[in-house]
Amino acid sequence: MFKKINHVALVVKDIEETMAFYQMVFNLPSAPVKDIPDQGVKGALVPAWNTQIEFIQPITPDTGVARFLEKRGEGLHHVCFEVDNIVEELARLEAKGFRLIDKTPRRGLAGMIAFIHPSSTKGVLIELAQPV
Amino acid sequence: MFKKINHVALVVKDIEETMAFYQMVFNLPSAPVKDIPDQGVKGALVPAWNTQIEFIQPITPDTGVARFLEKRGEGLHHVCFEVDNIVEELARLEAKGFRLIDKTPRRGLAGMIAFIHPSSTKGVLIELAQPV
Repeated sequence: MFKKINHVALVVKDIEETMAFYQMVFNLPSAPVKDIPDQGVKGALVPAWNTQIEFIQPITPDTGVARFLEKRGEGLHHVCFEVDNIVEELARLEAKGFRLIDKTPRRGLAGMIAFIHPSSTKGVLIELAQPV
Repeated sequence: MFKKINHVALVVKDIEETMAFYQMVFNLPSAPVKDIPDQGVKGALVPAWNTQIEFIQPITPDTGVARFLEKRGEGLHHVCFEVDNIVEELARLEAKGFRLIDKTPRRGLAGMIAFIHPSSTKGVLIELAQPV
């Protein structure tokens, strides 16, 4: 079952500078910056009133996020839907023919997470997350 | 004052088909489709648990949204921040040197709205909205 929009994610060049910017402009708090080595990024999940904004900055070249930044520049990257049972949802989506980037959940900033390929979802990179 | 994320907006080729898709996959409701002639689009604002998802489809060629769809394909388009006083926020942002697409608010799906250029906001097209 889908429960809420867990976060909207932005790719940025400099996560600390961007958090300071969002704090100055929108009065959002900052959050701890964490390395996510298997995605080649560092990230921070910032509370934003009714949802969260995730900032991600590539730290390894030739990863998906690094290529995104190179090709498209900074900007909107993905939307994360929160689920109560990520294993069940992935099985349901795979059975429906969705192209899963992650067939099994892995650890991410928002909990146990998995990505669905935008070719299955009308151009939108969608993350599922089950908080832990 | 900023109050919440009012919605995340996606550019799509076929709004009715996309709403049916989001209903099937995520169990989201559908919403009335409305024409927004001054932006050259039709749009629908769908409740999505803690926030909303806006679907926009270009109906006029050579508008910003039509060019976006042509160049980038379907996908994430903008994020909308809800404010309690949009005139005041626009004045504050302009004084800080932000590049405003709309210097005065106009009527949009989410109320009185105005866009800030992504060149001022680290690549993210940001809409402000004051519900009416």
